[in-house]
Amino acid sequence: MSKINKVVLAYSGGLDTSVILKWLQDKYECEVVTFTADLGQGEEVEPARAKAKSLGIKEIYIEDLREEFARDYVFPMFRANAIYEGEYLLGTSIARPLIAKRLVEIANETGAEAVSHGATGKGNDQVRFELGAYALNPNIKVIAPWREWDLLSRQKLLDYAEQHGIPVEMKQGKKSPYSMDANLLHISYEGGILEDPWAEPEDSMWRWSVSPENAPDKPTYLELSYEKGDITAINGEAMSPATVMTYLNKVAGENGIGRLDIVENRYVGMKSRGCYETPAGTVMLKAHRAIESLTLDREVAHLKDELMPRYAKMIYNGYWWAPERVMLQKMIDESQQTVNGKVRIKLYKGNVSVVGRASETDSLFDESIATFEDDAGAYNQKDAEGFIKLNALRLKIAGKAKRKV
Amino acid sequence: MSKINKVVLAYSGGLDTSVILKWLQDKYECEVVTFTADLGQGEEVEPARAKAKSLGIKEIYIEDLREEFARDYVFPMFRANAIYEGEYLLGTSIARPLIAKRLVEIANETGAEAVSHGATGKGNDQVRFELGAYALNPNIKVIAPWREWDLLSRQKLLDYAEQHGIPVEMKQGKKSPYSMDANLLHISYEGGILEDPWAEPEDSMWRWSVSPENAPDKPTYLELSYEKGDITAINGEAMSPATVMTYLNKVAGENGIGRLDIVENRYVGMKSRGCYETPAGTVMLKAHRAIESLTLDREVAHLKDELMPRYAKMIYNGYWWAPERVMLQKMIDESQQTVNGKVRIKLYKGNVSVVGRASETDSLFDESIATFEDDAGAYNQKDAEGFIKLNALRLKIAGKAKRKV
Amino acid sequence: MSKINKVVLAYSGGLDTSVILKWLQDKYECEVVTFTADLGQGEEVEPARAKAKSLGIKEIYIEDLREEFARDYVFPMFRANAIYEGEYLLGTSIARPLIAKRLVEIANETGAEAVSHGATGKGNDQVRFELGAYALNPNIKVIAPWREWDLLSRQKLLDYAEQHGIPVEMKQGKKSPYSMDANLLHISYEGGILEDPWAEPEDSMWRWSVSPENAPDKPTYLELSYEKGDITAINGEAMSPATVMTYLNKVAGENGIGRLDIVENRYVGMKSRGCYETPAGTVMLKAHRAIESLTLDREVAHLKDELMPRYAKMIYNGYWWAPERVMLQKMIDESQQTVNGKVRIKLYKGNVSVVGRASETDSLFDESIATFEDDAGAYNQKDAEGFIKLNALRLKIAGKAKRKV
Amino acid sequence: MSKINKVVLAYSGGLDTSVILKWLQDKYECEVVTFTADLGQGEEVEPARAKAKSLGIKEIYIEDLREEFARDYVFPMFRANAIYEGEYLLGTSIARPLIAKRLVEIANETGAEAVSHGATGKGNDQVRFELGAYALNPNIKVIAPWREWDLLSRQKLLDYAEQHGIPVEMKQGKKSPYSMDANLLHISYEGGILEDPWAEPEDSMWRWSVSPENAPDKPTYLELSYEKGDITAINGEAMSPATVMTYLNKVAGENGIGRLDIVENRYVGMKSRGCYETPAGTVMLKAHRAIESLTLDREVAHLKDELMPRYAKMIYNGYWWAPERVMLQKMIDESQQTVNGKVRIKLYKGNVSVVGRASETDSLFDESIATFEDDAGAYNQKDAEGFIKLNALRLKIAGKAKRKV
Repeated sequence: MSKINKVVLAYSGGLDTSVILKWLQDKYECEVVTFTADLGQGEEVEPARAKAKSLGIKEIYIEDLREEFARDYVFPMFRANAIYEGEYLLGTSIARPLIAKRLVEIANETGAEAVSHGATGKGNDQVRFELGAYALNPNIKVIAPWREWDLLSRQKLLDYAEQHGIPVEMKQGKKSPYSMDANLLHISYEGGILEDPWAEPEDSMWRWSVSPENAPDKPTYLELSYEKGDITAINGEAMSPATVMTYLNKVAGENGIGRLDIVENRYVGMKSRGCYETPAGTVMLKAHRAIESLTLDREVAHLKDELMPRYAKMIYNGYWWAPERVMLQKMIDESQQTVNGKVRIKLYKGNVSVVGRASETDSLFDESIATFEDDAGAYNQKDAEGFIKLNALRLKIAGKAKRKV
Repeated sequence: MSKINKVVLAYSGGLDTSVILKWLQDKYECEVVTFTADLGQGEEVEPARAKAKSLGIKEIYIEDLREEFARDYVFPMFRANAIYEGEYLLGTSIARPLIAKRLVEIANETGAEAVSHGATGKGNDQVRFELGAYALNPNIKVIAPWREWDLLSRQKLLDYAEQHGIPVEMKQGKKSPYSMDANLLHISYEGGILEDPWAEPEDSMWRWSVSPENAPDKPTYLELSYEKGDITAINGEAMSPATVMTYLNKVAGENGIGRLDIVENRYVGMKSRGCYETPAGTVMLKAHRAIESLTLDREVAHLKDELMPRYAKMIYNGYWWAPERVMLQKMIDESQQTVNGKVRIKLYKGNVSVVGRASETDSLFDESIATFEDDAGAYNQKDAEGFIKLNALRLKIAGKAKRKV
Repeated sequence: MSKINKVVLAYSGGLDTSVILKWLQDKYECEVVTFTADLGQGEEVEPARAKAKSLGIKEIYIEDLREEFARDYVFPMFRANAIYEGEYLLGTSIARPLIAKRLVEIANETGAEAVSHGATGKGNDQVRFELGAYALNPNIKVIAPWREWDLLSRQKLLDYAEQHGIPVEMKQGKKSPYSMDANLLHISYEGGILEDPWAEPEDSMWRWSVSPENAPDKPTYLELSYEKGDITAINGEAMSPATVMTYLNKVAGENGIGRLDIVENRYVGMKSRGCYETPAGTVMLKAHRAIESLTLDREVAHLKDELMPRYAKMIYNGYWWAPERVMLQKMIDESQQTVNGKVRIKLYKGNVSVVGRASETDSLFDESIATFEDDAGAYNQKDAEGFIKLNALRLKIAGKAKRKV
Repeated sequence: MSKINKVVLAYSGGLDTSVILKWLQDKYECEVVTFTADLGQGEEVEPARAKAKSLGIKEIYIEDLREEFARDYVFPMFRANAIYEGEYLLGTSIARPLIAKRLVEIANETGAEAVSHGATGKGNDQVRFELGAYALNPNIKVIAPWREWDLLSRQKLLDYAEQHGIPVEMKQGKKSPYSMDANLLHISYEGGILEDPWAEPEDSMWRWSVSPENAPDKPTYLELSYEKGDITAINGEAMSPATVMTYLNKVAGENGIGRLDIVENRYVGMKSRGCYETPAGTVMLKAHRAIESLTLDREVAHLKDELMPRYAKMIYNGYWWAPERVMLQKMIDESQQTVNGKVRIKLYKGNVSVVGRASETDSLFDESIATFEDDAGAYNQKDAEGFIKLNALRLKIAGKAKRKV
């Protein structure tokens, strides 16, 4: 254990990271810089200042990163239609690279040699934080208390807080029996009864959306405007990326949209059960596919589809800052130059339906060719014969060679 | 145009294929064998017999292929979680290879040199029929009247029917303004107002499902049992593949599930708008992913996910009988040996939710490792440090080489 | 057959395209513009001017495109390490997009409605010319005489030339029994005895290289300098792209390097036998992989490797001008930012060996880490245990679940 | 450190593993079982018996695994045309899974709880041994002395040997300045001057092949017979897999074939320089591609090519026994059903050239279609027009939409 003089801690203000803060001071005898970010988790971040001060912290960073998060992380990811394992919209995964980046930047600013976080040794988040930190500063040190200390049960944590005078209100911890994480893109739930994959979570677990049963009996229609693959306006009103997400979270959540209950494969090798609420993201994915369906070349779309699982895996596994992700992003962003237009969607009791899509400038839908009616020679049906004959040629030759497939 | 003595026609009994039947007799002066299959389209096939007889046909094949279709085509395809372009469940695509196979087999049985179908020269179905036919019999001839004749408008078709004494009741054609196709997996709608991708179809278009608005206010729960990736029982009752699909179509359709409205890229090079109702398929995809999430190794699942778009494209484009599809299927089927267990789903007003998954024999979910509680040493958190350090090594070396990613 | 007033013909000056020229004048009663390009095929292009004039052509384009060809087509392709079917370096394929582009540009300049070429209906080149032309000008018309006319044997071609007064010296055609194509990247041979895939071509067929047997007994060493993935100097002397290729063709050809004899799969559905001489390309591929091995991140390299066959197929099949190729190229070019340095190679009797690679600015080879000797703590061997343990976790869980793989 | 009673050691009989043997006895106070395998490394394995005995070992396994190695590991891998990073034929990688398997089997037979090996903490081999062991027996323990002990220099190792009475003749170690590994597929060299990637190794380093300069002036021709993708006879003489490899190593090595000098990316995150001699493998890869070029469907071949880098990576990284490798192998093996026939090759001073390929039963080369001469209607050139037109359709539509690619 080399000597650390100063460490930047990703600090939420809650019990766990307050205990970590104290433990870092004691164990490493180092100065701690706290970093608390508003990523849209829906809780005030300012109270973390007083808590940090009360624990003797001198350098306190509290930042509103919602626009940066939406614009530079969430939106680029949605250009790829990224889904992990067919279901998961990567809500937690996409927030970690931004936190890692700020931790490293603050370490540089404050002369800290190390960064620290409250993620456990079993999960993906430790990997995401640390791969990000190492990629952005190869000399940074990382302290991961959950992998080092022996406070491995809730009671031990509470006892430690008691012994070290960590203020009482922090000790309460969350009322929820679940381990949760939230930001503009989603809120996640793990642990508790979810550790039995056969058990259905009670409805009270969910926080951001009503159940489809409790959603309004009337549908809501929205018109989303796209520029280069990003939503830039809703119902004709221009909005910033974070505003788009806030708005969609509210409207989609009210319509019972975005709940997900899955078993997923963690990068560290185990399966885990997670429940997620992603109202805005669920709408954004569906609508983005719709505007692409009109404006993207077929082969470009297919290439994107084939590379998407790999791109999603990079983000899930913590490789946002790795050169292979950057390289793929170049390709994806290039593909979005023509993804301009608007999509009309209907939200109703958990359902997102696309009911219209249009692009004045970039539509590749050519009604004069596709029509079932007379196409005035736009398409020569006889061309299809040659097309089929040559595509069949290798199959016919194989058939003649007495192949059985 | 070489001499054809006998041709096998895929015959629905409707106006279009009755005109084709007559046109084949006149134009090619050949004998026509009709083949009519029940693939679960929901219309009686037996009436086609009388119609064929009235048009002078001697060899009439009318077959119930529902079980073969579900067992040997739909179920294998769902083992792959196949989706075309992120949305389409391939309902029409997967029926064509079976029809192509029977056309070729009947040609062999009856000594016909050719097969014929009623698909137009603009669509994918001609390709699927013909690639299948050529692959299965490289010497077969194919007659595609829509690419040959000049009956290119509805009125010309009706006039031809009139002139050639095709029975009146056939002339009515479908009441629907849409071009439709149906089988056990789906019903599709194209044409009419759908040719404008901004237009929302009226609710009366949909035939197999109620709207979410009109679905019951109480959810329906189902328990699906899986063996090697296939559903073998529902709510504990063993069912054949076609029975599974019929049952799920009914229950899911009643709950407003399975409607889809998309713009897709055809193999022949144009975009087209299609609406699809796939009640059973929508449930099957969601539930299959859920049982796989519990029983499939992570890397196997990821490899399947990365190859899925390509597999789906093969089926969409008509390459079911091509060796590359067969080769991929071997791999997919191999992966399903452990996909055994049960999934509990909830159906409610258009939503399919997975609320439980279990496998007595093949679960890879290890609660003792994944738990947030004390794991009694099942997992050593310190291992994560080395895992992260070595995964970060290349990123750190690049960082030291003054790389900017 | 719609009326054509003017057509731009890719004109070599040889018998075939001279007959095509005449046939276009007669059949279409249109004006013909000739376009003859020097792509490094090693034959004078200027004589084509007199021949064209003698056939009554007024607008004659003769251009030296060697630098453009090397810089904008060959070099970008080699950044991808492109190989078709494990062997073929795409020498013919990569020349077609440039010719297609110039044909379309000249059509625009001269007001021609159509372009024409001398490729047959069995090969890949027709596809490459025409896909390129249609992509660059969707309204262009294409005349492919070999698919239209009935001059399907050599004798008929000669008779036609005779009848139409095509000058005698053109009638000789090539002495070679092979169909050949050449440019800076390669010379190809097809037909003749090569149509038997068991037959070995006689040594006299090869034109650009000596046989390994006849190559010098002393090796030649070269040092190649790379900037952003392209060779910019040889043995310290700065060279333009075309000069690099000319130089390497000479030196590598003298050392017996670059002969290839394969059976390949054409896009039109058949297998064909081809022999290729690619002296410079063979060296360039080997050396480019070597500089990448030192300067490219592992995952970037692997992603490139996995996408390479698809990229090569796009070029082989004629999709250079398609958006999916352009999109992939963006990604590939992005990856080459760090591919700077030098490679030392040894050429000897058919062999290209890499004997050294270095990069002052971008090497990711860290001797202090890789060393078998004491690394002074640069790498902590204990990290490997955690790395292996977590990578093994899923395998162990599966093993415990009594899996047999 | 939990108590180990018995451990199975992969024992070469050399200094390093003799020291490990002793160290295991001392440190773990456990019984050691030695396992020494003949994988074709070209050294006697029987002497290891006396050495083990002299160190007090009671259970000594000495096995000739050459046929199993060639048949069940090398040959299946070559069906995939596996190459890592465009160059490396995986000679070391493919031997490790077999050793891991035997270690685990012997542990089961002898009641050992653990296995041990002499691979360092910096390399790939530790990963390959251990992933294999854990996959085959999730409860096995692994002891990796190089990651545990402090004998990190050569001198410390020699001192330890001295102190513990390890027989003198063992202390000599290899004369070579290189770290070497050999088996039927290859011999590898690392370390020494190779740690400078600009340095060319001296010719005396290479052991299995003469240099091209010293190879005979006359070429050697061979005819290789294939059944289901495997070589079963050479020059008409049936041979077992290990005999094939031994024979080809001799003949190809005599002709200067199979030397390789590369920088590669290790799974543990660093780049390393390696030199390899793979005479038989170099011939096998070239010839296998040739027989596939004649007998494999185009799309099957392309799918194999696109998946190959991933398959090679699995083997390189140590995942031979993982389900994803097994799944891919099923697909690859399926593809080889038709890979039957013969290939004629020419070996000359470092060059392997294919000069003929034939398959009586499975050739897909149809000369009547491919011919430049009159094909008697086997192929209708007019089909190409429709083929091109429909493949161009999306490009034309995009062009009309004023796209610039």
